[in-house]
Amino acid sequence: MAKNLASRKDDFPQWYNDIVTKADLAENSSVRGCMVIKPYGYSIWEKMQAALDKRFKDTGHVNAYFPLFIPKSFLSKEADHVEGFAKECAVVTHYRLKNAEDGSGVVVDETAKLEEELIVRPTSETIIWHSYKKWITSYRDLPLLINQWANVVRWEMRTRLFLRTTEFLWQEGHTAHATSEEAVEETKKILEVYTDFAENLMAMPVLQGLKTDNEKFAGAEDTYCIEALMQDGKSLQAGTSHFLGQNFAKAFDVKFADANGKLEHVWATSWGVTTRMIGALIMTHSDDHGLVLPPNLAPIQVAIVPIYKSDEEYDRVSEKAEEIKKELADLGISVKYDNRKTHKPGWKFNEYEFKGVPIRIAIGPRDLVNGQVEVARRDTLEKNSYSSDNLGTVINDMLKEIQDSLFQKAKAFRDENIREVSTYDEFKQVLKEKGGFIKAHWDGTTETELKIKQETKATIRCVPLEGDIKSGTCIYSGNPSKQQVIFAKSY
Amino acid sequence: MAKNLASRKDDFPQWYNDIVTKADLAENSSVRGCMVIKPYGYSIWEKMQAALDKRFKDTGHVNAYFPLFIPKSFLSKEADHVEGFAKECAVVTHYRLKNAEDGSGVVVDETAKLEEELIVRPTSETIIWHSYKKWITSYRDLPLLINQWANVVRWEMRTRLFLRTTEFLWQEGHTAHATSEEAVEETKKILEVYTDFAENLMAMPVLQGLKTDNEKFAGAEDTYCIEALMQDGKSLQAGTSHFLGQNFAKAFDVKFADANGKLEHVWATSWGVTTRMIGALIMTHSDDHGLVLPPNLAPIQVAIVPIYKSDEEYDRVSEKAEEIKKELADLGISVKYDNRKTHKPGWKFNEYEFKGVPIRIAIGPRDLVNGQVEVARRDTLEKNSYSSDNLGTVINDMLKEIQDSLFQKAKAFRDENIREVSTYDEFKQVLKEKGGFIKAHWDGTTETELKIKQETKATIRCVPLEGDIKSGTCIYSGNPSKQQVIFAKSY
Repeated sequence: MAKNLASRKDDFPQWYNDIVTKADLAENSSVRGCMVIKPYGYSIWEKMQAALDKRFKDTGHVNAYFPLFIPKSFLSKEADHVEGFAKECAVVTHYRLKNAEDGSGVVVDETAKLEEELIVRPTSETIIWHSYKKWITSYRDLPLLINQWANVVRWEMRTRLFLRTTEFLWQEGHTAHATSEEAVEETKKILEVYTDFAENLMAMPVLQGLKTDNEKFAGAEDTYCIEALMQDGKSLQAGTSHFLGQNFAKAFDVKFADANGKLEHVWATSWGVTTRMIGALIMTHSDDHGLVLPPNLAPIQVAIVPIYKSDEEYDRVSEKAEEIKKELADLGISVKYDNRKTHKPGWKFNEYEFKGVPIRIAIGPRDLVNGQVEVARRDTLEKNSYSSDNLGTVINDMLKEIQDSLFQKAKAFRDENIREVSTYDEFKQVLKEKGGFIKAHWDGTTETELKIKQETKATIRCVPLEGDIKSGTCIYSGNPSKQQVIFAKSY
Repeated sequence: MAKNLASRKDDFPQWYNDIVTKADLAENSSVRGCMVIKPYGYSIWEKMQAALDKRFKDTGHVNAYFPLFIPKSFLSKEADHVEGFAKECAVVTHYRLKNAEDGSGVVVDETAKLEEELIVRPTSETIIWHSYKKWITSYRDLPLLINQWANVVRWEMRTRLFLRTTEFLWQEGHTAHATSEEAVEETKKILEVYTDFAENLMAMPVLQGLKTDNEKFAGAEDTYCIEALMQDGKSLQAGTSHFLGQNFAKAFDVKFADANGKLEHVWATSWGVTTRMIGALIMTHSDDHGLVLPPNLAPIQVAIVPIYKSDEEYDRVSEKAEEIKKELADLGISVKYDNRKTHKPGWKFNEYEFKGVPIRIAIGPRDLVNGQVEVARRDTLEKNSYSSDNLGTVINDMLKEIQDSLFQKAKAFRDENIREVSTYDEFKQVLKEKGGFIKAHWDGTTETELKIKQETKATIRCVPLEGDIKSGTCIYSGNPSKQQVIFAKSY
């Protein structure tokens, strides 16, 4: 490997970290647990944002922006929420620095202490529902369908680039409804938006389901989720959509008058996906040659590399390359012609391969004579020559094929790695030897769930919503089980 | 006024605040000095972001994301910077809360005290240049042209919605170059981008100039700025572009090897515009009827209102309205058909007028018979009937005309309010009676500048870059002056 990449088999975590840092996606900063998202990584996030934002707007949502800081007392207003979020937080206690008396720099000005500490938002339900109290008085104000793109902070003890960082970027939707039914419908609608995004943009198959009481969002009635299987057999929660019932409306006293003037508490949802999705994208598709990106999210879909010896050859090749670039750009393809003379073709080939550019086109003097170009697919590493006539259609079709093929490959892997077990011994054996998703009967108690977690580190990733729902016997307690659930080790 | 709006003449600050809150742009939050940007206000910011982001990318810049938190010691590394920014800051001192022993809520866990306090970024030069040290080793790594969209916090004592808030949204560009000339060129290029954005998108004429040493960015060699004149005769700094010399490269020890292997410190720029631009937009164009938005930044460019008595009329009018909506949308116009039966036409007329929608179209049964519609322009409040044939072209042209007309009107106002004075008495009289921009000779000393500020509250807004540059005598000290500068009271 040009970039000295660990292999997935030898050291999956190291392989992941190598890709993130050596493909210039992100790096650790000097602030513990906070990452720097580098331009190439951020451009993937911009593609994700654009695709999600369009889907949110198409389903009637609008964006807004709420404060970064939350008064400490707000967190305590919802009993479960405070248990889940008012723990590992960044706490602002002062609002001024002053010059140190010994000239050594700046120190906190102790006279500028806040009366009430402010928490850097770990999530925004409380500050948003405090506003909603002012905004909602009548059924005419509902539904309120708002999304926010923001940074949030959760003081994590063990962090990993993209997957778990102290500060991360996300979107958080917060909606308010007149009825429970409508709020549940919204929760499910967003789950479908996330599923569509994951499968059609990220080419990442997901399982839809409900979280157990133990795993659900602090303050939610129900948490719906999508779970994806990474190449090391661990599960990654890729998006959650929460039905909050009237919990936050009651905590912040938000009532609306219905058409008959009767006052009732508002029903709520919240939902989010984060920069963690970039980690999921990497661990779903990438290989021992580096990053692999699905065309629908690749910042550069096609890179063109000139092959030449003399300046005269460079000029002739460049003319053709610019022509092809224009043809592809006109079709809406994101294309880069790398005409730098400072780097050799071999270096460029390695670079685009490592950075997961879906298609690379090489053009040399002989290709000009033969009226063709060399086209390399990143996913299969296949190289073939194609006529340079009508190349736009060929490339366009190939991008679609790559997108589809990545999804099919990931789906086949995922499907192969869902295993049904009927005993706890079998469960432990599969978990140890194969990993993946394990379908097993569970008695529905938190007690059993926690014991299995303690003994095996596997958790219930989700309670499937559809499919083959059948009753049986809990693998752990032997008590009756309403349906099989999905266990896995997870990120 | 439907919404009980203060008039500009009677109480300009109240008028401004009424527009921001009653047009649903923003409101104060429960966190001191932090605002909630409501969906309508945020949609204007999204339009601004999209237009600026495109211009940044067209000029070769890419986006990235750096941490929210800055280690306290970083701020002290650049001597001027620390004086300017390490004062009124939000300081994170702890990373954990715990349940209060008396059960009253949560309290700061004193055992979770940070070794070094973290500052919520007031601007990101220090944290970014700390990264650049790792990224830049050779001339091949330059130029580095990076922008960031982010929230920042400056603990302001007196805040006003959009104009001065503790937390605000902005973009901050941070570039690194091999030569001083190239960095200066970048600084000026961005000033042109900002000017183009202000004049062609916001329809807001600006003066370009340099800040004085007293007014420039803490850590900059030179601060270039654009200044706009608000309707109350006060100036608003609408964007700044800083040539940072080698100050941050020296503070963070960032050197590059040139083509001959010689090590030199890197040259830098930084530049930003903020959500304050929304305040500038309001105070440039709006009137005593409410908000006025230039078409190029209006989230809704055209609103269609149906006039009807019966359901049958509603259906017929709606059919035509949907037709027109489609025709306009196909031309890329942002159009809303407000078909709500819950609100009367008069209410809708007031609503779109107050919210500054550039064009409102009304359609009633009689219009259907006559083959026409009523078109109202928000800027002039003129209403006229137009044939519904070929309406797309008419509306498209009218949007362009409104955009241009708003700019011309603002420019005429600004030009009328630039006054040249030659004595200090005249200066004080114009400032008191008329406000606006005052062109006057200044001796170039900070001492004179501060005395004038102390005595009159007027500051030097900029030292013009071009135009009629002539020497003379300082109005205050009588000492020689190289050129006239622009004074004004300011936001």
